[in-house]
Amino acid sequence: MADVVPLRILTDRFEALDQTLLPHEERYVRLDTLETVCEAIGSLRVRGAPLLGIVGAAGLAVAAVELGTSDQTLRGGAAGISATRPTAVDLGARTGEALAMALGLAEDQREAALWEFARRLHLDRMEEDRQIGRLGAALLPEGAAVLTHCNTGALATGGIGTALGVIRVAWETGRLSRCYSTETRPLLQGARLTAWELKRLDIPATLLPDTAAASLIASGQVNAVMTGADRIAANGDTANKVGTYGLAAVAARHGVPFYIAAPTSTVDLACSNGMAIPIEFRKAAEVGGFGGQRWSPEGLDAYNPAFDVTPKDLIAGIITERGVARAPYRESLRALAAGRVTA
Amino acid sequence: MADVVPLRILTDRFEALDQTLLPHEERYVRLDTLETVCEAIGSLRVRGAPLLGIVGAAGLAVAAVELGTSDQTLRGGAAGISATRPTAVDLGARTGEALAMALGLAEDQREAALWEFARRLHLDRMEEDRQIGRLGAALLPEGAAVLTHCNTGALATGGIGTALGVIRVAWETGRLSRCYSTETRPLLQGARLTAWELKRLDIPATLLPDTAAASLIASGQVNAVMTGADRIAANGDTANKVGTYGLAAVAARHGVPFYIAAPTSTVDLACSNGMAIPIEFRKAAEVGGFGGQRWSPEGLDAYNPAFDVTPKDLIAGIITERGVARAPYRESLRALAAGRVTA
Repeated sequence: MADVVPLRILTDRFEALDQTLLPHEERYVRLDTLETVCEAIGSLRVRGAPLLGIVGAAGLAVAAVELGTSDQTLRGGAAGISATRPTAVDLGARTGEALAMALGLAEDQREAALWEFARRLHLDRMEEDRQIGRLGAALLPEGAAVLTHCNTGALATGGIGTALGVIRVAWETGRLSRCYSTETRPLLQGARLTAWELKRLDIPATLLPDTAAASLIASGQVNAVMTGADRIAANGDTANKVGTYGLAAVAARHGVPFYIAAPTSTVDLACSNGMAIPIEFRKAAEVGGFGGQRWSPEGLDAYNPAFDVTPKDLIAGIITERGVARAPYRESLRALAAGRVTA
Repeated sequence: MADVVPLRILTDRFEALDQTLLPHEERYVRLDTLETVCEAIGSLRVRGAPLLGIVGAAGLAVAAVELGTSDQTLRGGAAGISATRPTAVDLGARTGEALAMALGLAEDQREAALWEFARRLHLDRMEEDRQIGRLGAALLPEGAAVLTHCNTGALATGGIGTALGVIRVAWETGRLSRCYSTETRPLLQGARLTAWELKRLDIPATLLPDTAAASLIASGQVNAVMTGADRIAANGDTANKVGTYGLAAVAARHGVPFYIAAPTSTVDLACSNGMAIPIEFRKAAEVGGFGGQRWSPEGLDAYNPAFDVTPKDLIAGIITERGVARAPYRESLRALAAGRVTA
């Protein structure tokens, strides 16, 4: 078994595994200028909401080394990093926190503090993921086969991952027999990234077309379906990578529990229910082809939402680092968000 | 609008649209030897169960022109054609019928009779598809938006198609506002073939990743989901392209009717229910890549069934050339299979 290390934060620079080259090549890019940091984010060499938060904070440390630590320089650097992917909430939020922390210090203390902040963020992520993993793995029966969707592993978070972190802990503790991963069209994060992580971790893995998931669930071969979340509304309705809702709907028909694994920072109490979650629609060119390959006629209209919303009634539990929320979610999520740790 | 013409049966030879080149190039291949016929079938230049039936019969006529009409020659030709894709039921069945017909005639009458048989088969297919189209279109509300899966058009049947034939008649008669087509992983028949047919017929069309179908149905933008069938059990359980069951399950949750459109020859009264329908599993290499492109690590296990089974309770109606079967299907399908035409 080899570990999955998407980021290496060193003394005065950091390196990131270039995810655009996976699974065919494992190459680290050295991020030692603000420009290389922004380019890596913009071209998706690094991706995954929690991971981008760490990259943003470490990127600000890089800017301090390269350009200096004046208020103006750091403000400009933080703005530049955040603007690279404006819809990535963690990127802007964590970069902003790093900036606020630095501005509160004397200029000559800022560089070291920014590196320390980024490393701390990375460590916190690792701890939270481990806790989610432990709590989630305990929900699975012995010898469980688990179906997952998209990529929610180390490549996405910098820790061991959320849903894939649960699967990893279940494997490490002998509870898992196999992980099934969808391809996850249109961007194929399952086929490219999750398949690579599973192989690297020596976890028995089976890849399937998104179309085959209902057949797999109906066949009785999976004991649970588990995914991450992009945003969880106050009532438990959960937005996640498009395709999640269909898995949850079929799982419910067959009595297979469907779990969400996500940090409490994903819970948005300001969103009352799923209707209030904004859904990003992506460009038509992602449909009917991949990479340089086109399968469909040019110029066709496409329906390409990045996320869908799974209604709370289909969710057996929401696994966070502070505990597992159960229905009714309005109460259990509020308690977790307020910091109360539950079993 | 341009028509879709997958086969041209001429006096003493025939031509087929090379479907492997679609949607990028429209080229007919001349099938004037037994070898070219078998090569075209084996390499999927022609595909679709009903279309292969016509190709098999016309292929036997080609063999008669090329090699002669003795019993031995025709038997050998028919065996060669049928063996090219042994699991394609229509290919073997129609080729066998053409052979039996020819063997009942004097040798000098066989060549002309085989061409006539193939042309008749093609015409019958056109009439049956039109009838399915008329009966199905009448079920749709005015201005309907319909979601379909895989390819069930002219390219698959030689007529106007089954589910796509319904969509075409609905368009021609002003009942259709838009057709939504899934990409249909892993072989992408929706992205490659259905998208091409819809564009060619000037039908307003939207392509979506298979993962986005549940989101689309939940959004209220489709009035019906309609697919073809590979085999319909006596109780109404229906095997069709993998991914169909998931669409039907989500449609049911939102009160969107899910219809099957297929000729009565697809009904297999010898299969009591869906459990008795054999499901073909295909090679792992189709998952995690397409064409020459690989997205996933090499050597991964794959779950790749060609079909799934939609339980009868999720089916609002089964549209055949003889009428629309409704639940309870055991009675209605038996009546249709016995030749009784119903409204």
